[in-house]
Amino acid sequence: MKAKLFIKSIVIFIVTILSFSAFSQTRERTLRLASSWSDNFPPFSTAVENFAKYVNTLSDGELTIQIDTSNKHKSPLGVFDLVKTGQYDLGHSASYYYKGIDPALLFFTTMPFGMTAAEQYGWFYYGGGLELMNEAFSKHGLMAFPGGNTGQQMGGWFRKEINSVADLDGLKMRIPGFAGEIMASLGVAVVNIPSGELYTSLERGTIDALEWVGPGMDISMGFHQIAPYYYTGWHEPGTELIFIINERSFNRLPENLQETVRLAARLASYEMYIQNYHMSSEAWTEIQESNDIQVKSFPESVITALKAANDELIQEEAKKSPLIKRIIDSQDAYLKQSREWTLISDYLYLKDNN
Amino acid sequence: MKAKLFIKSIVIFIVTILSFSAFSQTRERTLRLASSWSDNFPPFSTAVENFAKYVNTLSDGELTIQIDTSNKHKSPLGVFDLVKTGQYDLGHSASYYYKGIDPALLFFTTMPFGMTAAEQYGWFYYGGGLELMNEAFSKHGLMAFPGGNTGQQMGGWFRKEINSVADLDGLKMRIPGFAGEIMASLGVAVVNIPSGELYTSLERGTIDALEWVGPGMDISMGFHQIAPYYYTGWHEPGTELIFIINERSFNRLPENLQETVRLAARLASYEMYIQNYHMSSEAWTEIQESNDIQVKSFPESVITALKAANDELIQEEAKKSPLIKRIIDSQDAYLKQSREWTLISDYLYLKDNN
Repeated sequence: MKAKLFIKSIVIFIVTILSFSAFSQTRERTLRLASSWSDNFPPFSTAVENFAKYVNTLSDGELTIQIDTSNKHKSPLGVFDLVKTGQYDLGHSASYYYKGIDPALLFFTTMPFGMTAAEQYGWFYYGGGLELMNEAFSKHGLMAFPGGNTGQQMGGWFRKEINSVADLDGLKMRIPGFAGEIMASLGVAVVNIPSGELYTSLERGTIDALEWVGPGMDISMGFHQIAPYYYTGWHEPGTELIFIINERSFNRLPENLQETVRLAARLASYEMYIQNYHMSSEAWTEIQESNDIQVKSFPESVITALKAANDELIQEEAKKSPLIKRIIDSQDAYLKQSREWTLISDYLYLKDNN
Repeated sequence: MKAKLFIKSIVIFIVTILSFSAFSQTRERTLRLASSWSDNFPPFSTAVENFAKYVNTLSDGELTIQIDTSNKHKSPLGVFDLVKTGQYDLGHSASYYYKGIDPALLFFTTMPFGMTAAEQYGWFYYGGGLELMNEAFSKHGLMAFPGGNTGQQMGGWFRKEINSVADLDGLKMRIPGFAGEIMASLGVAVVNIPSGELYTSLERGTIDALEWVGPGMDISMGFHQIAPYYYTGWHEPGTELIFIINERSFNRLPENLQETVRLAARLASYEMYIQNYHMSSEAWTEIQESNDIQVKSFPESVITALKAANDELIQEEAKKSPLIKRIIDSQDAYLKQSREWTLISDYLYLKDNN
């Protein structure tokens, strides 16, 4: 009997150890992410894929990010709501798409005549930008991280030259968002056309001009085959995409995985900036080799008019809330300071040595 | 007896389980890193600290990086050997310090009239640069990763204006490395002075000029108080530091930790670029507020002479090995392609909108 009791207690002990061992095994988790992009849309889709890969590798398989592109969830401009309502844990999108939901969200992507990519990263990470962005997103139960920069965007493809402000009057152009509002205030007939119909619309003269991104993403659209003028950028000098995460999903993660998500997003964001720089370099060479494209800058009179319209619209925005006023003031101050450095560093290097 | 045997076998079973359990516990590891920098030398020291912090967080404490600065190991320019010989697992330094050991190592930091930070990151990660760098380092049993970019460096602090090539003749200047060789070939008396004595040397006129980094790191040296001319950059347009790791140390790591080291280095590298951008912006504002500094560009005749001297020296380097020739050709091609894009994007944006 004694021996039996001993055996019994040993068996219980073994079972206890095995249960504890099983319980202490790392728990595998999955977070669901909705992106605003279609399948295979580099470098935007690559930024999401890199993020998921980094998270999986860095957590040693503990955390998996399951990506649904817009091909799956059918709501490219509804990602904000999909994450806010908890249908997805995470989203990858652009903050300025959601200005209609909350006007403060306009300011965390890029602004006309605003900061370049390096300047804006400085603002986000060292100049208080990240805190302001999260103040805005926390009102919606969301956290936000920079999600990848396109660098400088081009002003767009034009079928005719713009030599004066008068040339903008009645010009039919696809240019969405805040830049579209600015253009509209100068008389441009801003039109909204699905991306799949842009090439044909430009070719047939339904529109006179359009803006897309830059050579790296424009080349596959083929616009260089039908529009001879490629205007330089003024409206999106450092477009930053965004990762958003539902606060409840984030808070459920153990601290080390929260930090993994944060750092993976940060790396995926920087990485997209370099990937797109590379893509644009390669594509611009290819475009130049196959077509006779003229790179044009808008004349000073047009730039002056665009700036005045921009200033006026920004002043309207500033009235909408104290937070928006603080964001605008913070961006203005950071731009002023960092631009001084940009101008004596990379700018003069490029000016003097080419 | 049967019961006893059963008990014995159960005890063995328990011991086996416990041993296995202890063995399968995550093994905590430490890698030792030697940096070329003194304590508290931001952003260089910060890049190392960030790397160590990322590795520790992302491995959930499994891997610790123990940093020894040059205050400890006393060999700031001997980091390459400290890692090659296995006295340290990792190093953080600059590749071009080790040109004397292997002339191919000159090319992985920055080159006069070469790529900007964004262009060079493109080359490293998408243009074959990383592979060429590791081809060079593998000959020494080392692996290398980009380790942090200073962005554009300034041409230096001068006590008198440079208006012609003749003004360089006999000029006493502290400018180390390859840029120093170029300057020397134009008649500059290149001197080597320990950093602690630079301020006094410049103040007393022992030297006429010196180059350091840029506003963010120059400000604490105080040069702006004693030299009125701040020349723009030509010689280090995108200085990239480097993480090196002994191949044996790397290969001993399990695959997931290898990837953690790789990604943590990549993030720390990008991060330093932005941190230094911010530091330079802030410092430049402060320098301008406290001192009457004139920003000057070298006249075209000087730039032309510097370029000619650079080309000649590079051609000499190209003869040293087929690998060096391939590196130079790869950098030339990438610079040519990416510069076209830089000029129509950020450059024209800055030119037209300021």
